[in-house]
Amino acid sequence: MQPFELSASEAARQIKSKDLSPVDLVQSLLDRIDSLEPALKAWVYLDREEVLTEARRKEQEVGSGTTVGPLHGVPIGLKDIYYTAGIPTTACSKLYADFVPEYDATTVSSLKRAGAIMLGKTVTTEFACMDPSPAINPWNPAHTPGGSSSGSAVAVASRMCPAGMGSQTVGSVLRPASYNGLVGFKPTFGRVSRYGVIPVSWTLDTMGWLVRTVEDAALLLQVMAGPDSADPVASRTEVPDYLKGLETPAAPRIGFLRRFFYEQADPETQKNVDQALRQLSQAGAQVEELPMPDSIDTAIADQLLIMSVEGAAFHQPMYEKRAQDYQPKLREMLGRGLAVDAATYSRAKERRLQFVTDMELLAEKADVLLTPSTPTAALADLSNTGNTMFQGPWTYCGLPAITLPSGLAQSGLPLGIQLAASPFDEARLLAAARWCEGVLDLHLAPPV
Amino acid sequence: MQPFELSASEAARQIKSKDLSPVDLVQSLLDRIDSLEPALKAWVYLDREEVLTEARRKEQEVGSGTTVGPLHGVPIGLKDIYYTAGIPTTACSKLYADFVPEYDATTVSSLKRAGAIMLGKTVTTEFACMDPSPAINPWNPAHTPGGSSSGSAVAVASRMCPAGMGSQTVGSVLRPASYNGLVGFKPTFGRVSRYGVIPVSWTLDTMGWLVRTVEDAALLLQVMAGPDSADPVASRTEVPDYLKGLETPAAPRIGFLRRFFYEQADPETQKNVDQALRQLSQAGAQVEELPMPDSIDTAIADQLLIMSVEGAAFHQPMYEKRAQDYQPKLREMLGRGLAVDAATYSRAKERRLQFVTDMELLAEKADVLLTPSTPTAALADLSNTGNTMFQGPWTYCGLPAITLPSGLAQSGLPLGIQLAASPFDEARLLAAARWCEGVLDLHLAPPV
Repeated sequence: MQPFELSASEAARQIKSKDLSPVDLVQSLLDRIDSLEPALKAWVYLDREEVLTEARRKEQEVGSGTTVGPLHGVPIGLKDIYYTAGIPTTACSKLYADFVPEYDATTVSSLKRAGAIMLGKTVTTEFACMDPSPAINPWNPAHTPGGSSSGSAVAVASRMCPAGMGSQTVGSVLRPASYNGLVGFKPTFGRVSRYGVIPVSWTLDTMGWLVRTVEDAALLLQVMAGPDSADPVASRTEVPDYLKGLETPAAPRIGFLRRFFYEQADPETQKNVDQALRQLSQAGAQVEELPMPDSIDTAIADQLLIMSVEGAAFHQPMYEKRAQDYQPKLREMLGRGLAVDAATYSRAKERRLQFVTDMELLAEKADVLLTPSTPTAALADLSNTGNTMFQGPWTYCGLPAITLPSGLAQSGLPLGIQLAASPFDEARLLAAARWCEGVLDLHLAPPV
Repeated sequence: MQPFELSASEAARQIKSKDLSPVDLVQSLLDRIDSLEPALKAWVYLDREEVLTEARRKEQEVGSGTTVGPLHGVPIGLKDIYYTAGIPTTACSKLYADFVPEYDATTVSSLKRAGAIMLGKTVTTEFACMDPSPAINPWNPAHTPGGSSSGSAVAVASRMCPAGMGSQTVGSVLRPASYNGLVGFKPTFGRVSRYGVIPVSWTLDTMGWLVRTVEDAALLLQVMAGPDSADPVASRTEVPDYLKGLETPAAPRIGFLRRFFYEQADPETQKNVDQALRQLSQAGAQVEELPMPDSIDTAIADQLLIMSVEGAAFHQPMYEKRAQDYQPKLREMLGRGLAVDAATYSRAKERRLQFVTDMELLAEKADVLLTPSTPTAALADLSNTGNTMFQGPWTYCGLPAITLPSGLAQSGLPLGIQLAASPFDEARLLAAARWCEGVLDLHLAPPV
């Protein structure tokens, strides 16, 4: 196995045991980037010299016996909405073309404190919204890589980087993760600080990450979970040991959601889920079908309304001066959001509260809830970033969710299953996901 | 002591021990109502025969040795926004003149299950908003009784009823309680179900009650606290024993809030607070001045904006047909709320989140926070229901709060001190309030 193929956790282990030099790891990834980036367009910013200097520093620290953090020497890509002190943060928008933050996002500080190397900034759709980005799906360039965390998805899938930070307001982490054959994870709303990340919608935005193993999803959560005095959304709920439960995971009780999810998936996705459920069940999981609450009926439209309003609330001053500089889908959304009256928005938020309660009660009925990750594999349509419908409800109700690869479609593009669990019960979700990952035992890599 | 003078807890004790007949208690209160109601106008609905029939039933139950609830035979008044099955619930508005609910509010069911007798419906300002109601302050008819829970305040202060239910969106429980020399209590947002209560503002409305002792405040909380599947706001946080801590309360650590509160009170209110703090301190309380967070600067205006929007979100269909049937202050508020755009409201809600966090952190620094209950005693001005400014912040941030009488102003009207504590820490708040009540040892009753 070449260094660029290692997961974040495996790389960290080998660096700690001095079986791998951070410099060799970084060089291996930079070589990979040199070879693939011209075709895949995953990166916005990458300073090779600075990254190698940092890798040498990490190597010295290991050599000198300094205590090393859990991500020591592991390179990570950052969606270009994460503030990086002294480094441009453009949101891939003309409007932020010249923006250089003076401080790091809290998550970036946490990653650095854990020893991670910031490899570079990855492509995002403009302001993490719906206009397609330049990033190319490494499984097939004619198919969308998804969005909005498209650059992180492409970089991690093509082994240019073991882990990439993303963010999910509707379906922006788990969808591109699934489209690219990855593990994508978003914690409970409030579990991870959002301070220093350019917002879309303040009641929806959730930090998330794209990796290749459940262990990596847990490791990154361990490093970033916790309160933040700079972010009133960041919860003071205690942070458990997420990695411990992964060691000997038990077969979970799975609540399978047919309504809304499975029934709206295409036949090959349904077949893939049927097969996954059969495997999981044969391996010992208890699978029970659970009913989606009726409040799902208004949830999707309400979520889009709320996103448009809260996006408009942030962008209004810029939009009023430079509407023409926004890409068309985002411009349209902001115009729509600005036209909403407060009473309409308030009623949507009140309905949302009912949905959140309903989903929390539903999640209590099993260890994890299971759905297909997307209605179809990534489509051969570059005009949009794909259907967010299966991610939206989880972001809307704030429950933690993860996607795992579960096979390939006829088109050769990956399919995935999505698991969700009770709020702040990421430990249970990750342990169940680890168990499922072991049972499905897939090793997908794109043909690049 | 005549039966009508008894606190709810004392009446319950005497009924349980058969030292008091529920019929005698009800008759004593009805006689009191017959004598005072023509002048005080506290009641909207009262069915003497039905109440006496219910009292006889309660008496039989005690006699027959049936297990009795903690409020067995105790009459309670309900602000006329609480749904009562088969009994008109008018919100003191033309618009609800003919409304007869088919079910009881969850709180009403809880009170009934505890054995309480619904004595009648009390006057409210129209829809629990700002237009003055007919209720008269029993301390002095030229002074406002406050609002919006004016009928419950007047009824409990004048000993027509030992306890009255109210609701607080800005200052509608603790302000009228303080203006009438009462104990007024509102729990943490979400501690008590709101199902079956006509709303003002769904993110602010908090059920509360007006009583004459801290013990009564705790007893009613014990009966009503808890989850409710019909109300997504009602929290599933565990309900502790609120009464236990009242038995031997310890001297609390008091955080005194000079900024915003004390500094905006009139000189005699300040003097009254100085004196109360001296007494509490001499009795063993640790008093420390704590700083209000800067986020208070926008909180009051934001709260009024949010109330107007959410009020409008509820009233819109009626308002569009019958605007002229609303009283002027409410009509004006609804018109204002309907004109707000969603982005403006969303930004206010985002600022609110910061304020909530700041206040929660502040509350952690002491057992209770202490302020004067109102900037002045009830004023000789019947054109409005008084200044809500000292209640607003607690309703806005959702922390539990209680007011206790602390003396009389030059005008002969009562003054009070207000205590608040951390979310869902009502046990600590009530124990501290019980301790303060014992130290201040005031026995105020209006001259009626």
